[in-house]
Amino acid sequence: MSRFMHPRYNVFAEYVPGEQPRDRKIIKLNTNESPYPPAPSVLSAVGRAELADLRLYSDTENRALNQAIAARYGVPVSQVFSANGSDDILYFSFMAFSASGKVYFPEISYGFYEVYADMQEVEGIRIPLNPDLTIDPSKYENLDGMIAIANPNAPTGLSLTKEQIEGILKTNPDNIVLIDEAYVEFGGESVLPLLPKYENLLIVRTFSKSLSLAGARLGYAFANEPVIRDLNKIKFSTNPYAINSLSEICGAAAMQEDAYYREMCAKIIATRERSIAALRALGFAVTDSKTNFLFAKHAFIPGETIYLKLKARGILVRHFSLEKIKDYNRITIGTDEEMDALTAALKEIIKEEENI
Amino acid sequence: MSRFMHPRYNVFAEYVPGEQPRDRKIIKLNTNESPYPPAPSVLSAVGRAELADLRLYSDTENRALNQAIAARYGVPVSQVFSANGSDDILYFSFMAFSASGKVYFPEISYGFYEVYADMQEVEGIRIPLNPDLTIDPSKYENLDGMIAIANPNAPTGLSLTKEQIEGILKTNPDNIVLIDEAYVEFGGESVLPLLPKYENLLIVRTFSKSLSLAGARLGYAFANEPVIRDLNKIKFSTNPYAINSLSEICGAAAMQEDAYYREMCAKIIATRERSIAALRALGFAVTDSKTNFLFAKHAFIPGETIYLKLKARGILVRHFSLEKIKDYNRITIGTDEEMDALTAALKEIIKEEENI
Repeated sequence: MSRFMHPRYNVFAEYVPGEQPRDRKIIKLNTNESPYPPAPSVLSAVGRAELADLRLYSDTENRALNQAIAARYGVPVSQVFSANGSDDILYFSFMAFSASGKVYFPEISYGFYEVYADMQEVEGIRIPLNPDLTIDPSKYENLDGMIAIANPNAPTGLSLTKEQIEGILKTNPDNIVLIDEAYVEFGGESVLPLLPKYENLLIVRTFSKSLSLAGARLGYAFANEPVIRDLNKIKFSTNPYAINSLSEICGAAAMQEDAYYREMCAKIIATRERSIAALRALGFAVTDSKTNFLFAKHAFIPGETIYLKLKARGILVRHFSLEKIKDYNRITIGTDEEMDALTAALKEIIKEEENI
Repeated sequence: MSRFMHPRYNVFAEYVPGEQPRDRKIIKLNTNESPYPPAPSVLSAVGRAELADLRLYSDTENRALNQAIAARYGVPVSQVFSANGSDDILYFSFMAFSASGKVYFPEISYGFYEVYADMQEVEGIRIPLNPDLTIDPSKYENLDGMIAIANPNAPTGLSLTKEQIEGILKTNPDNIVLIDEAYVEFGGESVLPLLPKYENLLIVRTFSKSLSLAGARLGYAFANEPVIRDLNKIKFSTNPYAINSLSEICGAAAMQEDAYYREMCAKIIATRERSIAALRALGFAVTDSKTNFLFAKHAFIPGETIYLKLKARGILVRHFSLEKIKDYNRITIGTDEEMDALTAALKEIIKEEENI
């Protein structure tokens, strides 16, 4: 850091995103992108006219995008917020709703929750997982600060039911309960039906996973109007033109292609179930993932060994060095062909390790 | 605000962007966009292949964009930072470099400086302008906090020389001096040549004005490596994938079209000089703008009257209610035809007002 930097930033580590190699020959199963392209109508949504219009600022109110989201999910547009990636929404929420000085989240979850707590100089309290890596909802009752839960959780892939989350909402009437539904379309249960009942509910979603638009940087949220107004206050105090025009066009188009994206999710889920069976047959413990990734540890080969040996074979997965999960790897669901290549590589690695 | 919102945000007003009507029949001279489209190569930079690639995350290091910026300006890529609009860079700078608890900026300047000081809960100290609205550089010597100066300044359009800014840099060795060069390509003098001499210099630029890419949301900065590292620390602690893939492609393409953009800037400057002469002939005091906008007040018609009467005629300009400049309007330089329509409308308005 420079000698000009505020010392508050000295004390914590920033988020480390997954590797983004530019080499297209790599089988990239490390950042939970979709193996399938955006819907055909998205691919034709941007042409020379839209590019020429880039001379004009984008819409600070994101009317086209928010209306498309509202129409798709049958909620009033006043209950929709969108931003430059769901990371921005998570960050805004930690800014807005951490007045008590404490924020609670699962011990093992999306790494940014801890970073955002650090950024706000509030206490980030990690609630332990059960030994089987599931979340115990009773540990989130009657707390004294905002709660952030990824559901399904990452990197475990495990999910809570709507009823379990309702118990948390009921017992925390004065705390925002942020449910990060980044992966919900792959088999989780959304809490969107609870929105009319709970003014403390904030649901965060992304276009990066099921909607094949990670590179567009689009996230959205559902909440009741006062909470949406709070998020807008933060947005208009930081970067009102946060979403660029082309991403807004692509996002609005994607919201109208429900059938296409349902089909892609079904394909990913089918590949996931095949892959879980294949890995279990190879001696892996694999969680009951409701997401577009697997979380798997081998009976005797360390997680880092598997990560490095896959990488040497041109297959990139995500390994976390955190003690409790260091024997696992998080593996994005690719195409069937990519997952077959993964299984073949794992077989080779196991054979090598057995011969050592 | 909701009852969940941190009370710190209750105490200040967010930024109010210029109106963004979707009605394309309006002559839009209110947010300093370019009247000319991006370069032809930018208009063909994004096709179906780039849209299909949106399934993948964008590059957190923005290698293609930063290298194009570095090559265009002849600086090492390690001295370049880019972000989702220059607003993000300004905000990051207020976060990173306000450890003294004070930030200094001109009394009348870009409205976000005050908002960002409020967001960081530091004292935003407004340094008075001279009566002719110019900045007195001697008032910025030997201060005890970060300094932010738009050069040329907005909405006055007036600029400081490189030598005047060097005096500020020399006498503030322990403070970041942020020079916001959003409008520098329209006749201002950049301080980029001073970068090797001053480790406290941070230059912020945008693709929104001279490069006709307001809707793409791209800003960039030049500073010495330690300061660039600080900005990256903030970026990787908030939103590492901040720039979307399509904007990065467009921005990198724009950086290679120097001849086209020089020609567009020359056209805008020629239109500006014609427009200044026309408005002065109508009894307006017009500052010596080095930007792509005019700042003009009429001899006897209040600024708000002119704003409203132009709006009623389908011409949108920007009026600020701040006491010291309430008789002015900020008028973006459009095409020659648009500026002729403006002049004609102003003639009508003056005639009406003379007859009251």
